[in-house]
Amino acid sequence: MQKGVMRPGHVQIRVLDMETAVAHYRDRLGLIHTHTDSQGRNYFKGWTEIDAFSVVLREADEPGMDFMALKVLDAATLAARKQDLIDYGCQVETIPAGELDGCGERVRFDSPTGHWFELFAEKEQTGKWGVGDRNPDAWPEDLKGMKATRFDHCLLYGDDIDGTVDLLSSVLGFQLAEQVRDEEADLRVAAFLTVSMKAHDVAFVRHEEKGKFHHASFYLSSWEDVLRAADLISMHDIALDIGPTRHGLTHGQTIYFFDPSGNRNEVFSGGDYTYPDHPVVTWDASQLGKAIFYHDRQLNERFLGVVT
Amino acid sequence: MQKGVMRPGHVQIRVLDMETAVAHYRDRLGLIHTHTDSQGRNYFKGWTEIDAFSVVLREADEPGMDFMALKVLDAATLAARKQDLIDYGCQVETIPAGELDGCGERVRFDSPTGHWFELFAEKEQTGKWGVGDRNPDAWPEDLKGMKATRFDHCLLYGDDIDGTVDLLSSVLGFQLAEQVRDEEADLRVAAFLTVSMKAHDVAFVRHEEKGKFHHASFYLSSWEDVLRAADLISMHDIALDIGPTRHGLTHGQTIYFFDPSGNRNEVFSGGDYTYPDHPVVTWDASQLGKAIFYHDRQLNERFLGVVT
Amino acid sequence: MQKGVMRPGHVQIRVLDMETAVAHYRDRLGLIHTHTDSQGRNYFKGWTEIDAFSVVLREADEPGMDFMALKVLDAATLAARKQDLIDYGCQVETIPAGELDGCGERVRFDSPTGHWFELFAEKEQTGKWGVGDRNPDAWPEDLKGMKATRFDHCLLYGDDIDGTVDLLSSVLGFQLAEQVRDEEADLRVAAFLTVSMKAHDVAFVRHEEKGKFHHASFYLSSWEDVLRAADLISMHDIALDIGPTRHGLTHGQTIYFFDPSGNRNEVFSGGDYTYPDHPVVTWDASQLGKAIFYHDRQLNERFLGVVT
Amino acid sequence: MQKGVMRPGHVQIRVLDMETAVAHYRDRLGLIHTHTDSQGRNYFKGWTEIDAFSVVLREADEPGMDFMALKVLDAATLAARKQDLIDYGCQVETIPAGELDGCGERVRFDSPTGHWFELFAEKEQTGKWGVGDRNPDAWPEDLKGMKATRFDHCLLYGDDIDGTVDLLSSVLGFQLAEQVRDEEADLRVAAFLTVSMKAHDVAFVRHEEKGKFHHASFYLSSWEDVLRAADLISMHDIALDIGPTRHGLTHGQTIYFFDPSGNRNEVFSGGDYTYPDHPVVTWDASQLGKAIFYHDRQLNERFLGVVT
Repeated sequence: MQKGVMRPGHVQIRVLDMETAVAHYRDRLGLIHTHTDSQGRNYFKGWTEIDAFSVVLREADEPGMDFMALKVLDAATLAARKQDLIDYGCQVETIPAGELDGCGERVRFDSPTGHWFELFAEKEQTGKWGVGDRNPDAWPEDLKGMKATRFDHCLLYGDDIDGTVDLLSSVLGFQLAEQVRDEEADLRVAAFLTVSMKAHDVAFVRHEEKGKFHHASFYLSSWEDVLRAADLISMHDIALDIGPTRHGLTHGQTIYFFDPSGNRNEVFSGGDYTYPDHPVVTWDASQLGKAIFYHDRQLNERFLGVVT
Repeated sequence: MQKGVMRPGHVQIRVLDMETAVAHYRDRLGLIHTHTDSQGRNYFKGWTEIDAFSVVLREADEPGMDFMALKVLDAATLAARKQDLIDYGCQVETIPAGELDGCGERVRFDSPTGHWFELFAEKEQTGKWGVGDRNPDAWPEDLKGMKATRFDHCLLYGDDIDGTVDLLSSVLGFQLAEQVRDEEADLRVAAFLTVSMKAHDVAFVRHEEKGKFHHASFYLSSWEDVLRAADLISMHDIALDIGPTRHGLTHGQTIYFFDPSGNRNEVFSGGDYTYPDHPVVTWDASQLGKAIFYHDRQLNERFLGVVT
Repeated sequence: MQKGVMRPGHVQIRVLDMETAVAHYRDRLGLIHTHTDSQGRNYFKGWTEIDAFSVVLREADEPGMDFMALKVLDAATLAARKQDLIDYGCQVETIPAGELDGCGERVRFDSPTGHWFELFAEKEQTGKWGVGDRNPDAWPEDLKGMKATRFDHCLLYGDDIDGTVDLLSSVLGFQLAEQVRDEEADLRVAAFLTVSMKAHDVAFVRHEEKGKFHHASFYLSSWEDVLRAADLISMHDIALDIGPTRHGLTHGQTIYFFDPSGNRNEVFSGGDYTYPDHPVVTWDASQLGKAIFYHDRQLNERFLGVVT
Repeated sequence: MQKGVMRPGHVQIRVLDMETAVAHYRDRLGLIHTHTDSQGRNYFKGWTEIDAFSVVLREADEPGMDFMALKVLDAATLAARKQDLIDYGCQVETIPAGELDGCGERVRFDSPTGHWFELFAEKEQTGKWGVGDRNPDAWPEDLKGMKATRFDHCLLYGDDIDGTVDLLSSVLGFQLAEQVRDEEADLRVAAFLTVSMKAHDVAFVRHEEKGKFHHASFYLSSWEDVLRAADLISMHDIALDIGPTRHGLTHGQTIYFFDPSGNRNEVFSGGDYTYPDHPVVTWDASQLGKAIFYHDRQLNERFLGVVT
């Protein structure tokens, strides 16, 4: 957090049919459905999140991610980072406060991998859902489905991942926590970046097309909750990608599946922690299968090929 | 246990190389290696098992199962069931006490699916390993690998599974706890049989060849131990079949992998219980994928095709 | 199950106020509330139980247990055991079918510790709640509170526990699985009895008064569910006795608390299994604290003194 | 981490007998014993920690904590914070590099509660024990006892906790994450401070004496590991304080016990996360019992009274 960027703040995801999408993110993932705005977008949050929302669904003709936003410490930081982004050469656009209900001004910028990111400093704080901050109970009893606790990170696919790593590191203070390297080709195949103790706040995999969305990920409380998520996937006939399993990278315990529009979701628990003085954890490309799916030790084609 | 048959007592498995096999069952599965007999066979048990052994490895030119044995209440029961088996028309052979070190007389018989089973009433009792039966601690500290607690059941493949179900039910008191049925073909595709509260003490899947061995299964204490087992499979580069996942049948939490000779092993936790008055749980053959692998909801080819 | 007794079938518990009691057993323990009969008694079951009910609450002036019932294999077994009980010298009374809605004829008998037990062979079978027996899902989604899976056992306090052990063993085929012995006084202090693989289907602790009820116990799926139960106890300000902890006896993972009438409840997971050929597990009275509460290694006064 | 302070780096604990202490921290807590220095001090680390050590034991006539150290980003930060501490009015002492083997220069300072803290920027990095940073496996197989993953935080008792909160906040960038307040007396009873996402990196409880040590805490991977820790405490007859249970403050899952010298240890899993924009979580002093021990909802006397 050395440049005042705190965490992923929200992600706006395109869905083909709003009704089934709302049901999926609310009843299956168990996010709290907080709001529908005047454009028909729907807002959600994990129950442990302080801010008013962290996921926005927008109905569109094709699935994918519109943008991912990062919350910064305060307005001064926002202004400073905006200037830094301009100086770095990004396309920078300011979205006025209120374009997303409850959210302050957002600074939107592009990246070498073709993804749109945003910074913001202000969002309405509604507190932890169902528990609050005065003598808070351990958890609220009325959670649904997978009981996702928070929006955790995105994994994005694009071509110039070294460019995006440089942008996020040098301008926004991200740390490269883990990576996959093809030493023969002298190529970084994947990069996991963090502004916190989490092993990743955003991650990238090298891919020929720009601007692709691999998945949005949500945090669960335990490996047992990963099992319950897997059970729910089967009970509700949700398209499974892979899991329950563990990642080699970050060692998180995970399961992947698809929302009704074909966007991939992850729920996971555990995972390594990092600090600024930690060496980069490196996986060799020759072990990419194990790096991604620690138990199977081989990639399925969907993981590399299916993005939105 | 209405005919005095208590539980699976042991399984004798053929392995291609004894040294690597001993290392696998001892250091990876975490069975207690108790003994090597004068024929060079190696004996193992899970730490919670009272009897002296439950797994016997025999070096041979091809993998597979020699026989699976069931322990009965006492010598009188053994004699009575022997006569019942003869009356039923089985080939019955008596193996003298001591042929397996520490085991009393065994009554061996064939089955319509071409598997050899045994009954025995006496085996040396060495008690729960590392804890005993006086003020026993919760678990012994020196367990290795997956910490398998007991030999639990076998899944066997063969042609006339209705014949074997009839034999085990009518002569030995087994209960059909769960099954897979192809209603269109009026065919039972799989049968899970028990003499206890466990959802299966032995199970069968219909298969064109006789006498095939799908897997021997070992019980773990928790879903977290299934994760640790999966991690160990990766750390030691053991051939994974599938998992961690859950079964639809029995709802056990499971992972499958192969010993160095190609015999399939399962370790699992949880699973349903049954009683004699419980209705048979039936899965439709159209849902066979979900019945076997509850999360993936499709079979991998290995599960149906690879047997020893 | 050598005398055809299968399992605990139901327990009738006296409560001081029916409304709060129903809310407790339904919303906190998470039992399925199935029925109110014409006498105003309320019926419940755990979701995995096949039979129509396993817990009956009766409003009365003081808390405690009216009786605990055991289900036998069939009507012939019921008749045979009835005669055996008469021959043994018990007071035996026949309760006609329908006195409890959905339950067949019950044979009620007294015991040397002053508790009333019942046998029955018939009860309406409503199947596993929310999943059934055709392609059953792993669990139903609408469970409440602690999600208790089944009524598991009772622990009863009384004076002549050796007498009751003899009655249950010799007439009903119970096995003494575990015990606490005071070797100096040559006295059995506690006895854990089973007719199944479970470490106890009913248990007794020596106590000066006859006919006392220590607790009814309900089974949970995992140690994590014990934590969730503990959390719910705190969230709803339920009177805690002790836990989460482990027992030395049976090694189950447990928490004790009180219903609004002062009856003690237990929910637990795990625990040892037993078979008829297993030696009795014995704890020395000098280690009674560790035998009961494995972590604290000392009894709280409530455990010994508070019964209903 | 707004002032460049990253995390707790080490704690030096006084023990009465070195041999039994080493056995406790190595074989029971499962810390990696890395080193004995020329003064006879013993060094340990959790297996996930990058730095060469995090716990130092010193033999002395009475138990307690000598000092707790915080690692900062770099030498420049160390120099800046040193000046800030002097300006704030602390007693500041510089300990030369090498006084602790493998550790660079330390800046030691006192605090209003009478505890000694240190800052340092350099320590030998030996990497995660048994896994490294190239294709790292999920965990090393040779861990002992409770398998503590890292030194996590200390809880300290002293009089002027508002003074220490001010010092750590204003000079070192700590955030007040959680607190207990007695609103009637307008008094802060406890303060939980963090420089990271963790709910506490150091915590304080108001107490009449200065400079007291309540416990050092170590992180475990899961609630199941808390159970295993509890079992080990019983198996090895370690003095238990309380647990397994959950805290209300931070909601961590925990167990407390004592080392052979009477110093309290905690191992815990889970727990809330925080960010700089999170409101302070406040517990009312009237609910102190629930705040500390969420399930029991009452303090034991040891928790308030026994410190070293």
